[in-house]
Amino acid sequence: MPRLSVRFLAEACGTFWLVFGGCGSAVLAAGFPELGIGFVGVSLAFGLTVLTMAYSIGHISGCHLNPAVTFGLWIGGRFPARDIPPYFLAQLLGAILAAATLYLIASGKAGFDLQASGLAANGYDAHSPGGYSLAAGLLIEFILTMGFLLVILGSTDARAPQGFAPIAIGMALVLIHLIAIPVTNTSVNPARSTGPALLVGGWALAQLWAFWIAPLLGAAAGGLLYRVFAERPGKPDISGEAL
Amino acid sequence: MPRLSVRFLAEACGTFWLVFGGCGSAVLAAGFPELGIGFVGVSLAFGLTVLTMAYSIGHISGCHLNPAVTFGLWIGGRFPARDIPPYFLAQLLGAILAAATLYLIASGKAGFDLQASGLAANGYDAHSPGGYSLAAGLLIEFILTMGFLLVILGSTDARAPQGFAPIAIGMALVLIHLIAIPVTNTSVNPARSTGPALLVGGWALAQLWAFWIAPLLGAAAGGLLYRVFAERPGKPDISGEAL
Amino acid sequence: MPRLSVRFLAEACGTFWLVFGGCGSAVLAAGFPELGIGFVGVSLAFGLTVLTMAYSIGHISGCHLNPAVTFGLWIGGRFPARDIPPYFLAQLLGAILAAATLYLIASGKAGFDLQASGLAANGYDAHSPGGYSLAAGLLIEFILTMGFLLVILGSTDARAPQGFAPIAIGMALVLIHLIAIPVTNTSVNPARSTGPALLVGGWALAQLWAFWIAPLLGAAAGGLLYRVFAERPGKPDISGEAL
Amino acid sequence: MPRLSVRFLAEACGTFWLVFGGCGSAVLAAGFPELGIGFVGVSLAFGLTVLTMAYSIGHISGCHLNPAVTFGLWIGGRFPARDIPPYFLAQLLGAILAAATLYLIASGKAGFDLQASGLAANGYDAHSPGGYSLAAGLLIEFILTMGFLLVILGSTDARAPQGFAPIAIGMALVLIHLIAIPVTNTSVNPARSTGPALLVGGWALAQLWAFWIAPLLGAAAGGLLYRVFAERPGKPDISGEAL
Repeated sequence: MPRLSVRFLAEACGTFWLVFGGCGSAVLAAGFPELGIGFVGVSLAFGLTVLTMAYSIGHISGCHLNPAVTFGLWIGGRFPARDIPPYFLAQLLGAILAAATLYLIASGKAGFDLQASGLAANGYDAHSPGGYSLAAGLLIEFILTMGFLLVILGSTDARAPQGFAPIAIGMALVLIHLIAIPVTNTSVNPARSTGPALLVGGWALAQLWAFWIAPLLGAAAGGLLYRVFAERPGKPDISGEAL
Repeated sequence: MPRLSVRFLAEACGTFWLVFGGCGSAVLAAGFPELGIGFVGVSLAFGLTVLTMAYSIGHISGCHLNPAVTFGLWIGGRFPARDIPPYFLAQLLGAILAAATLYLIASGKAGFDLQASGLAANGYDAHSPGGYSLAAGLLIEFILTMGFLLVILGSTDARAPQGFAPIAIGMALVLIHLIAIPVTNTSVNPARSTGPALLVGGWALAQLWAFWIAPLLGAAAGGLLYRVFAERPGKPDISGEAL
Repeated sequence: MPRLSVRFLAEACGTFWLVFGGCGSAVLAAGFPELGIGFVGVSLAFGLTVLTMAYSIGHISGCHLNPAVTFGLWIGGRFPARDIPPYFLAQLLGAILAAATLYLIASGKAGFDLQASGLAANGYDAHSPGGYSLAAGLLIEFILTMGFLLVILGSTDARAPQGFAPIAIGMALVLIHLIAIPVTNTSVNPARSTGPALLVGGWALAQLWAFWIAPLLGAAAGGLLYRVFAERPGKPDISGEAL
Repeated sequence: MPRLSVRFLAEACGTFWLVFGGCGSAVLAAGFPELGIGFVGVSLAFGLTVLTMAYSIGHISGCHLNPAVTFGLWIGGRFPARDIPPYFLAQLLGAILAAATLYLIASGKAGFDLQASGLAANGYDAHSPGGYSLAAGLLIEFILTMGFLLVILGSTDARAPQGFAPIAIGMALVLIHLIAIPVTNTSVNPARSTGPALLVGGWALAQLWAFWIAPLLGAAAGGLLYRVFAERPGKPDISGEAL
C-alpha cells in the first residue's frame, strides 16, 4: 500500500472531485431553464464522481471519499482504526476546498446569491427540498447509508466478481440520490455535507449534526450486517487489515 | 454456498433495497416540480437496485429479489425446488417491510395522502398510469418477464462473459421500466407488487393477482426458452444445482 | 458454435426484444405527460436491448439483431456469406412480430390511433420528427451506421479488452439515438425499420428503401475501415470465419 | 503498436465521432420541443463517444481524441513527445470534418441558422450558455481537465483493474459535461472547440484561445499530480513509452 501521505492526498483530491462534481452539477446545471439536468442529472453526477475516482485512485487509498464509508469499513473489519483520523481530515479538507471553489465559479454569474442557491447543502424541515421532517430525513439517511455500505463491502468482498466494485458503488450512489434528493438533498456523506454548510453558514451549520449522526449510524449498521453475510460475526477487527 | 439462513437474510435485504429504492424514487422524486426524475429516473432506480445488490449479495443468495426470477430459474433447471418456499417468503418479507418504511418516510411531508400517492402499486384499467386495459397489462408483463428471465439465464450461463451478468440484468430491468410504466407501473416481480398493495389495500389488492399470474407465466416461458438455447430441452431439473 | 436453427431462433428473439423495447418505449412512454421518458429514455431503451441481449445470446448467435450488422461483419471478414440469408430472415421475423405485438398492447388504450402514433417508424421530409430532408437523413444514417460497425468490429477484435463489447455496442446505439432521433427517428437497422413500416403502411413503406440503403452502405464502409485498422486490407473474406 | 499512419487515421476517425456525436446531439436533439434530450442527453452523448471508441480503437492509437489528453499523457510520462504533432493534427482534422458534416446535416432542416445555433461552440461571457465570466470559465475548464487527466492516467495505470478504463474515462466526460455546460458549453478538449469555432467564426474564433489554454494547463496539472500518485516524481519522461 502507498505511503499515508500519498493516500491522504488521494482522499483529499477524490473528495474534492465528489463535492465539486456533485454539488457543482446541482448548483450550476440542475435548474437551467428548459435544458437543465434536474435531479436525474445530479444523481448521475454524484455517482459518477465515485465511479471515476474508484477506478483511478482506488488502488492508492481505497477511494472512500466519505467519513461514513471509512467508519463503516472499520466496523466491517476491513480498515484499521489508526487510519481513521487522517482519512477524515483529508476528506474534510477536500470537501471544503471544493465548496469554496464552486462558490468562486458560481459567483462568476451576475446575480448569483449564495443564500438563495444554498450551494446544495443538506437540510430538513424548511430546508428539505420537498419539505420533509427531521424524522423522515434521519430515517432515510440511515437506511440509505446502511445499504451503501452493504454494497461497498459486498462488492469488494473476495467472493464478488473482481474489478466491478467501482461500477456497483458508483451506481449505488446514483440510486441513493434518485430516491432521497427531495427529502434531504441527499447526504450519506458527512464530508459532502460539511463543505457547503461551512460556506452557507446559518441554518446549514445548525442542521449539519443530522448529516453526521444518521450516516455514521447507518454505516455502522451496514458494517455489522456485512459481518453476518461474511459469516464472521463478532466484534470489529481493529487490526491493520486494509481495504 | 452459504447457509440457508444467511441466504434468506440476503434475499430479504436485497428485496427491501429493490422495493424501497424503486418505489421510493417513484413516490418521493418522480413528480417533483420541474426537477423531478420522471419515468427515466424511476426506471434507472429499479434497475440499479438489482445491479448494485447483484454485485454485493449475488455470491451469497444469487440475488433473485423476485419470486418470478426464483420460479424461472427452477424452470430453467438452475435452482432447486426445495429452496423456492424460503426464497418466496424472504422476498415477500423484504418487500412488505420496504413498503412500510417508505410509507413512514413519505408521511414525513405535510399533506401526504397514501391513496393519492398509490405508493407505486401496480394496476390496470383505471389504475394503469396511462389507462391501459387488463389484457394489455397481462400481455406486456408476460413478455417482459419472459425477456427478463432470458437475460438472467443467458448472462449467467457458463458460456457468457463472466462477471458482467449484474450489469446485463440490472440494465434489463431499467429497459423493462422504460417500456412499461405507463401500462402497469411495471411489475415483472410479484413481491414488488405485493408490498405496496398491502399498504394501499382496496383496488391494489383486488388487482394484485394479475401481477402474480403474468410474471410467473412469463418467467416459465423464459425458462423454457433458455433450455432451447442451452440445447438441453426436457423436463426441468429439480436436483440441487444452484445458480 | 450452436446449430443454425438455434442461432436462427436467438436472432429472432433478440430482434423482437430490440424492436419491442426500443419502439415500445417510444410509443408507450416517450410522450407521457410531464413524466415521459423523451428521446433520452428512448435512446437508452434501444441501446439497452442490445446490451442485455449481447450478454445473453451473444455466445449463441453473435447477437447481430440487424441486417446492417450482419452485412458489415461479412464485409469486415468476420461472418460467412452463407449465413447471411437465414440471419436476415430471422431478424425480419422478429422485428415484424415485435411491431405487431406492440400494436396489440398500444391498442389497449382507448383512443389509440395507429397512424397518429406512427409506431416509431422511420421517415424523412414530412415524416422526419424534426422535418429534416432526405439528403440529411441518408447522410446521418450512413455515418452513424459506419461508426456503429466500427465500434462492433473494433470492440470484438481479439486485441480489445474481452467481455466488454456488449457495453460498447449497446452504448453506441444509445449514442446514435441521442443524435439522430430528430432527423429520421433513427434506424441504422433495416429490420427495425421494416417492422413498424409494415404495420403503418402508406408513407412508412414508401420511405422504407432509404433505411435499407443508407445503413447497408454505411455498414459496408465501416467494415472496410475496420480492415484498415486490422491491417488486413483486401477483398472480404467469405470463408467460414465466424464472429 | 500499429504503424503511425494507422494510428493517425484512428485518432482522426475517433475525434470525428466525438465531435459529431457530442456537438451533433447538442445541435440536433437538445432543444427538441418537449421530448428533447437537454444537457443530460448531451452529457451522455459526449461521454459515450469516448467510451465506445476507447473499446474500439484504444488498442490501436490509445484513443486520445483530444490534444489536452495527448499533452497530459506526455507530462505524465506515458506518451512520447515525437508523436504529439501527428496526434494533434489528426485530432484537429477529425474535429473540423465533423463540424462541417454536422453543418451539412443541420442545414437539412428548413430555417436552420448557423449563427443562432452556434454549432455547440464553446464560449464565455455573452457566449456562455448561463452568462458566466471568463474567469469562471477558465477556472472550471482547468479543474475539470485536471480531473479528467487524473482519471485517464489513474484508470489506465497498471495497478487499476484491467479493461475498465474506457468506462471510467467515458463516464468522467459525462460527469464533466453535467457540471460545466452552463458555464462554457464544456470543452476540456481544444480540438472539440476548434471544429465548431472554425465554422461559426466571429466570436467563437475570438474566444477559442481560452479553450486551448485552460485545458492544456489543466492537463499538465493532472499529469503532474498523477506522477505523485504513481510515486515517480521528477521531470517528464520523454522516451518512447507508449500508453
